[in-house]
Amino acid sequence: MYPTTFEGLLTTSHSDWKTFTRREFTPKTLTPHDVDIKVTTCGICSSDIHTANGGWGDAHLPLCLGHEIVGTVVKIGDRVTTVKLGDRVGVGAQAWACLDCEVCTASNEQYCEKYVDTYNGVYPDGSISQGGLASHVRVHEHFVFSIPDSLSSSAAAPMLCAGLTTYSALVRNGCGPGLRVAVVGIGGLGHFALQWARALGAETVAAISRSGAKRDDAMKLGASVFIDSAREDWTAEWKRGFDLVLNTANVAHRDTFSAYLDLLAVNGTFHTVGLPETPLPALSAQDIVLRGIKIGGSNLGSRVEMLAMLKLAGEKGIGAWVEEMQVNEGNCKEVMERMQENRARYRYALVGFESFFAV
Amino acid sequence: MYPTTFEGLLTTSHSDWKTFTRREFTPKTLTPHDVDIKVTTCGICSSDIHTANGGWGDAHLPLCLGHEIVGTVVKIGDRVTTVKLGDRVGVGAQAWACLDCEVCTASNEQYCEKYVDTYNGVYPDGSISQGGLASHVRVHEHFVFSIPDSLSSSAAAPMLCAGLTTYSALVRNGCGPGLRVAVVGIGGLGHFALQWARALGAETVAAISRSGAKRDDAMKLGASVFIDSAREDWTAEWKRGFDLVLNTANVAHRDTFSAYLDLLAVNGTFHTVGLPETPLPALSAQDIVLRGIKIGGSNLGSRVEMLAMLKLAGEKGIGAWVEEMQVNEGNCKEVMERMQENRARYRYALVGFESFFAV
Repeated sequence: MYPTTFEGLLTTSHSDWKTFTRREFTPKTLTPHDVDIKVTTCGICSSDIHTANGGWGDAHLPLCLGHEIVGTVVKIGDRVTTVKLGDRVGVGAQAWACLDCEVCTASNEQYCEKYVDTYNGVYPDGSISQGGLASHVRVHEHFVFSIPDSLSSSAAAPMLCAGLTTYSALVRNGCGPGLRVAVVGIGGLGHFALQWARALGAETVAAISRSGAKRDDAMKLGASVFIDSAREDWTAEWKRGFDLVLNTANVAHRDTFSAYLDLLAVNGTFHTVGLPETPLPALSAQDIVLRGIKIGGSNLGSRVEMLAMLKLAGEKGIGAWVEEMQVNEGNCKEVMERMQENRARYRYALVGFESFFAV
Repeated sequence: MYPTTFEGLLTTSHSDWKTFTRREFTPKTLTPHDVDIKVTTCGICSSDIHTANGGWGDAHLPLCLGHEIVGTVVKIGDRVTTVKLGDRVGVGAQAWACLDCEVCTASNEQYCEKYVDTYNGVYPDGSISQGGLASHVRVHEHFVFSIPDSLSSSAAAPMLCAGLTTYSALVRNGCGPGLRVAVVGIGGLGHFALQWARALGAETVAAISRSGAKRDDAMKLGASVFIDSAREDWTAEWKRGFDLVLNTANVAHRDTFSAYLDLLAVNGTFHTVGLPETPLPALSAQDIVLRGIKIGGSNLGSRVEMLAMLKLAGEKGIGAWVEEMQVNEGNCKEVMERMQENRARYRYALVGFESFFAV
């Protein structure tokens, strides 16, 4: 047990991926820049499912999932300056980068060639990173963030992954006054995207969903218009109406893809976040050239963006719409099942780690 | 014959597309904004081949190809103000747009929904546009451009299509000091792209080609470095080295596509111009998201861009590297064959229209 070992709810097989097994494991060696966090709260992300079920390929099993982590700093390496003992902090989906290369020094550390995911990543010394469905997590200080007092841990946890991913995508595409933004998919990612687009001052914030039932939620989240994409000929009214279409859904069909591209103004961008298991529908050069558009994507965000996002969230009272559940084997399975069935409204946070792992 | 009919070298069948037949045809009705141009020079573009051979679909045959046209203004409609009788002018690949919609008024008329190509386009009245392999061409004044005195007609003609296409792509991607640009394919489009990128002050101008024989030409055209993509592992040295990869070639293979994307810095853009007959290789969201890049494309350019381009070309002495051939049935066929065999260095201009069509 801590401080030499952590305890987690581990995934041990891809075939039986909804079964979580309580087990001790050894964290990576503590370096002068590492921070040990006693976990209190951990959100669940689609990445957890893609990794657990093998959809993204074989993982390093047994593995401790969870990369929307909030907790308390209980130990710091000699050279840590970003946080101090006792701080309430968060960790998202990235645990390490070299911080020395051209990419890192340009505040693009989420694209560093040596990038290490919060779990299932491989450190330079060969050890495997382990996530936050655990008693503790050990992470480099660059990837540890103080949580504003005004945010609850459960509202903050999903922000560290889903929030940052959408925030970075929006700001890198110039989201602000004058920009007409449409968000495709009102789920874990999309429900943040609507809040950020509104807070950043976008001219139009459209929510696009096949689920008319989400209309009210979308408007509460900041949408200025709800577009029901299950309606026939739904694009007609919105052709070339957006500078940015931010996609948070899986685009599996060519017709759907074409419809989204039809929404783009000349010089507009279809920007995708999230990493589905299926490829994008095939495109011709014509699809892009004759519309004069771009198709882009981004992964997570940088520390600079995380700090700006947390500040904005603290000021504007933005947080995840989240359902709390006590952490245990059964509830981990239950959350996975609900997420697979698209029942999340819009994120789950597991809580009660201190008492569960104290026993 | 003119002024009621024009005479052209027409394409009459997709199967026999290299045979050009001299024939009279009736131009569209003259409107107050139309300009009649007596053709002196016409460049040949890959679009002519894609249209003639049916690769882009069935064309409105018989058809007069040619959309890199230079000649002399011989008649103007009552309301024409952009040119006057006797001016040496050029026409590119676009002959008409509504000039009234949101797209047109934002100087994106090349994306107008009512866009009419210089040939094979359909005007609102149902008539088919006819190109410049002809005694005369009739075009709306918005798409007629004075040619700077310092440019020969043959050097200018290909600029009106291939030149504009690459110029617009570069300036819309912020080409200038600080930008690291790579141009894929040193052909009709690419040889302009290198010249523009240099003239616009890009930090790096790389020429990427599988043909090492083009190295010397590329350097003369303005490249600061030549990258031979036929070499094994040719990307290794250039990974993430460019902010913009401007593609002028047909990208048919997934490995090639991946290699080009590997050249992009974070937030960089792979921008394609040209419209090959085959689709782009399939992409996954991962290909884009994990690199943090964009894939864009553009079609031609606007009048504003054409004027800026011609000014720059006049000032810097930029023009097509062009081989002149006398216009006639045999030489039209010969040019098509040479272009199919990639023998152009780097563009052909047919000349001698006045004498050929005077007979």
